[in-house]
Amino acid sequence: MACERLVVVGGDAAGMSAASQARKRGDVDDLEIVAFERGRATSYSACGIPYWISDLVETEAELISRTPEQHRANGIDVRMRTEVVGIDLAARTVQAVDLETGRRYDEPFDSLVYATGSVPMRPDVPGIDLDGVYGVQVLDDGVAVRAELDSGRVRRVVVVGTGYIGLEIAVAAQVRGFDVTVVGRSQTPVGTFDSDVGAFIAEAVAGMGIELVLGDGAVAFEGDDAGRVSAVVTASGRTIPADLVVLGLGVRPNVQLAADAGIPLGPSGGVAVDVRMRTQADGVWAAGDCVESVHRLSGQRVVVALGTHANKQGRVAGINLGGGYATFPGVIGTAVTKVCSLEVARTGLSQKEADAAGFRYVTAAVDSTTRAGYFPGAKPIRVKLLAEKRTGTLLGAQIVGREGAAKRIDVLATAIWNEMGVDEVLGLDLSYAPPFAPVWDPVLIAARKAFEAVEADTRAEACDP
Amino acid sequence: MACERLVVVGGDAAGMSAASQARKRGDVDDLEIVAFERGRATSYSACGIPYWISDLVETEAELISRTPEQHRANGIDVRMRTEVVGIDLAARTVQAVDLETGRRYDEPFDSLVYATGSVPMRPDVPGIDLDGVYGVQVLDDGVAVRAELDSGRVRRVVVVGTGYIGLEIAVAAQVRGFDVTVVGRSQTPVGTFDSDVGAFIAEAVAGMGIELVLGDGAVAFEGDDAGRVSAVVTASGRTIPADLVVLGLGVRPNVQLAADAGIPLGPSGGVAVDVRMRTQADGVWAAGDCVESVHRLSGQRVVVALGTHANKQGRVAGINLGGGYATFPGVIGTAVTKVCSLEVARTGLSQKEADAAGFRYVTAAVDSTTRAGYFPGAKPIRVKLLAEKRTGTLLGAQIVGREGAAKRIDVLATAIWNEMGVDEVLGLDLSYAPPFAPVWDPVLIAARKAFEAVEADTRAEACDP
Repeated sequence: MACERLVVVGGDAAGMSAASQARKRGDVDDLEIVAFERGRATSYSACGIPYWISDLVETEAELISRTPEQHRANGIDVRMRTEVVGIDLAARTVQAVDLETGRRYDEPFDSLVYATGSVPMRPDVPGIDLDGVYGVQVLDDGVAVRAELDSGRVRRVVVVGTGYIGLEIAVAAQVRGFDVTVVGRSQTPVGTFDSDVGAFIAEAVAGMGIELVLGDGAVAFEGDDAGRVSAVVTASGRTIPADLVVLGLGVRPNVQLAADAGIPLGPSGGVAVDVRMRTQADGVWAAGDCVESVHRLSGQRVVVALGTHANKQGRVAGINLGGGYATFPGVIGTAVTKVCSLEVARTGLSQKEADAAGFRYVTAAVDSTTRAGYFPGAKPIRVKLLAEKRTGTLLGAQIVGREGAAKRIDVLATAIWNEMGVDEVLGLDLSYAPPFAPVWDPVLIAARKAFEAVEADTRAEACDP
Repeated sequence: MACERLVVVGGDAAGMSAASQARKRGDVDDLEIVAFERGRATSYSACGIPYWISDLVETEAELISRTPEQHRANGIDVRMRTEVVGIDLAARTVQAVDLETGRRYDEPFDSLVYATGSVPMRPDVPGIDLDGVYGVQVLDDGVAVRAELDSGRVRRVVVVGTGYIGLEIAVAAQVRGFDVTVVGRSQTPVGTFDSDVGAFIAEAVAGMGIELVLGDGAVAFEGDDAGRVSAVVTASGRTIPADLVVLGLGVRPNVQLAADAGIPLGPSGGVAVDVRMRTQADGVWAAGDCVESVHRLSGQRVVVALGTHANKQGRVAGINLGGGYATFPGVIGTAVTKVCSLEVARTGLSQKEADAAGFRYVTAAVDSTTRAGYFPGAKPIRVKLLAEKRTGTLLGAQIVGREGAAKRIDVLATAIWNEMGVDEVLGLDLSYAPPFAPVWDPVLIAARKAFEAVEADTRAEACDP
């Protein structure tokens, strides 16, 4: 067998998982692997950046699960601070630039893994390019923001956008004693939650002393003479002084290079892949934040930027590349975050998403406790469910509560994955002991209430057609 | 419609859930409900007794979710301290004894709910009837044990048996400063766990300063001149001084009354019921610890004494009694407990149970952390899985770890309920953020390892038939 060369573009979770799996399956003499990473780190936890900024995680190094040296010891030729700026599918080469030396060179490949991740959304508004306006997506962004906060010249931080990362950074800055304002267009933070759940998040954020400016997006950034941001101007005309601006408007898949090379994108704007993570270009695979996935409930193609998917997809691509067989089964929109001591989680479809997908449904929400009500440390938990009309199929779930609340979302994710009805969920044999749950777990109480709502809705429709 | 009379025998979770549901569905004028309870409390949490004994829960009253007065206000005629001593199916009466006055009377019924719970196993050994030897099953048992511990005359407590309740009582007594010894026949505590998991429990128990005498059952109890227990004698000939003995040998269904009345029992020894909780006697329903349930994996009938099943079964019986339709879908053996800060949980089949059911399987165990490894408060978690040979169907799971570990068992219970293969589990969209999980949740890592074990086993068998 002739020696094959695999080139990986992007050295974080997806790319390096693919490389590691391919290495594990392939024979070292037969498979040469070259991985390009434009940043300074491989295989790091982008999701951990806010906690490093807040000092909860002590060193940047803790966020790195595998260093370039470790990958090299594993037989992967990692080229750091080297950006791939072009892919020539016909010539089977990538064009690389060493960002330190400026040297450009072509690297041949037999197969390619495209794992370029995502880039923070940057609104096309005046002043967006001022100094002191940062997106936080890769570890180097985190390093830059942290350096700003450590510099002594920042007092007022404005986060633009109310997504997960924006809020996490806002909380991190608040914890460190900065004056923090969050500005967002939506009426409640984290628009992927229903507004009734989002209201709890808003309350928790405000309760920390973070100022929330909602229903009012940023329309311009003002700067000082040195070209550094000094204020954020909102749609309603408000001017909010800012020494540092962090963009938390979400991310988009980093697909420019793929598009330029003729690697087809899908309807959602991510790189189109099949279940084995193959793109529509021969010998080219893709994984991570840059690809689109099937949403198992809506049937739509969606881009979900999340480390857990990136790891799974990279593993799948690598196994297939290495001659094995594995598939990525799609997503159902599970997510979790923490705002101070408030835990929030979701899975399946929100009301807006269910509406858009054409479902009709009932909702039910219950308030309970994480442990038996009489047990010390019992904390409040609210579980909201969406169940399809008539069939009662569980379509979505959202949880908001305190310690011990959010991880229960995984039970509901597993139920949704298996297309369970809320009446079936109600029968589940879930664990019970007073330190862990009330005798009816909040998940079961919610399922019971949702089932009653489905029945009532069915009866009402029968009587009043 | 003529007035119907429902008699409920047993006023804890199952009986009173049935009564409440029947009341909710039926018309008050049409359905008269009489509930007999021989103890002093209704609708209490037996599982909470150890925590009240340990003072973690402050008052006995907190364990009671609904008092007799509350049930009466709901239109249920609750007769406390009144024991049903006979059921005459032909005459449609029960014979009741008021334990306070000794008055005996017959009470007629049209339909009956048999919800007598369970009784602690009492070994037939010399001295078992000495004063100071207690089983702990109903709230009044807990009152008695707590009174003993508060009396000032107890220093040395011996728990006989290593089941959940025994260990929980042992921990409670240890926390309150008593000298505690646990004596058990099995080699590791809590025999429903595999011995490798049980070893962690043993370590935690011993680490608290509780003496563990394993592989050595109690064969006799010695007493003093006043007829009070003074020591426990073990099979190996050891004599362990004891001022108080608590039996933790498990429980058996309380079926004597049913058997005497001709209400058929099932092969497991519990009252036989159908999916709607009907016994084989006309108009007689049963629910809770006294009935047998279908184990969805083994297909066997089993008796599982657990408050969560009692509540569900009572609800199902009550809905059906009230003219509605509901079914109890069976159990899969999920359980959870805490020993000091050690959390242990299980679902599905243990190795012994899988062997007995005729399955062939592989096992996989992984050690991980409850949060991202770099996140403060990340605690160790070990997940062990049993997966069927060839098919990879998840058959069982056991978790042992510290804070945040055990409740993950519910994800695996939901997966088992849906007959998922470990390769499917590995693809689940579970929640991820650093405060809640590593990027590969321990459940997913375990599924990945189990899947690899299934594949390796299949390959090995193909090569070496």
